Amino acid sequence: MSEQGPTASGRRVTKGAQFDFITQPVNLPNGQRVELDLVSHPGASAVVPFLDSETVLLIRQYRFAAAGDLVEIPAGKLEPGESPEACAVRELEEETGYRPGRLEKLGAIWTTPGFCDEVIHLYAAFDLEKTEQRLEPDEVIELVPMPFAEALNSLSGPIVDGKTATALLLADRATR
Amino acid sequence: MSEQGPTASGRRVTKGAQFDFITQPVNLPNGQRVELDLVSHPGASAVVPFLDSETVLLIRQYRFAAAGDLVEIPAGKLEPGESPEACAVRELEEETGYRPGRLEKLGAIWTTPGFCDEVIHLYAAFDLEKTEQRLEPDEVIELVPMPFAEALNSLSGPIVDGKTATALLLADRATR
Repeated sequence: MSEQGPTASGRRVTKGAQFDFITQPVNLPNGQRVELDLVSHPGASAVVPFLDSETVLLIRQYRFAAAGDLVEIPAGKLEPGESPEACAVRELEEETGYRPGRLEKLGAIWTTPGFCDEVIHLYAAFDLEKTEQRLEPDEVIELVPMPFAEALNSLSGPIVDGKTATALLLADRATR
Repeated sequence: MSEQGPTASGRRVTKGAQFDFITQPVNLPNGQRVELDLVSHPGASAVVPFLDSETVLLIRQYRFAAAGDLVEIPAGKLEPGESPEACAVRELEEETGYRPGRLEKLGAIWTTPGFCDEVIHLYAAFDLEKTEQRLEPDEVIELVPMPFAEALNSLSGPIVDGKTATALLLADRATR
């Protein structure tokens, strides 16, 4: 379904498959009036799952926008009313089939504050208990256990996932 | 200006003020056919400018999507035909009024591969030479020199800019 139209304020909203895309006039603090695009996003959580103190569980995931597979940490969007922590636990279990005994907050990032209001909450997960993976129809995911040191050393390229890089590097600082 | 319409393939394109927003059917590697949103982005460069070995030059920037100011590293979109390195030099000079004597690549990240094809190329800049700041009408920017250690210690919250976190942490690893 698609829907679009100008409003009295000059605000135009396009409903996409997952997101609303809004173009609107904005008054900046410097007195300028400009037109800006905004992708409206519910926020998300992402988790660095530690299988043991030296091994993280990454996922290889097909990403249409990247025209191929990326190696990432498990992550997903907040459901309505869901806390970031509950989202982290749910997404970790759905995508990997592991439930965390303990979750530690690493931080939170604006992924693209120039055009999207998404905040991703970042966690490390410990004491994992095996349950069952439950993928969505649009998820193509393979589990990739990897030495933490190797994951950290792969962040300088060629192109890596941003939330994954931030979370792994913050987890490294937190556990040093 | 706004423009939207379905195409023969079911692909709908909305032209925003800065970006195209595309909703389209996609055949996944698992055989599923799903409808996905994509923000079409030219890519970007971002730079950690080192004023000296212990001080970085950050910017405080108004971000409509974040409903306030964020402290970030200088960054901006690639112009048509522009190399990531040339973009880094240009954006650094425009936003801060400094030209780098030396640029080192830190890595590159997909900022939001779930719905956008943006790649940001990350650099560290050294041997800065003072020139002149040249802001765009939509940029509201204040220079924030900060001890590198303080910048690194502020990344655990409350909410920070993603590319800035990744680049500072990669610069820390590269200079350790």
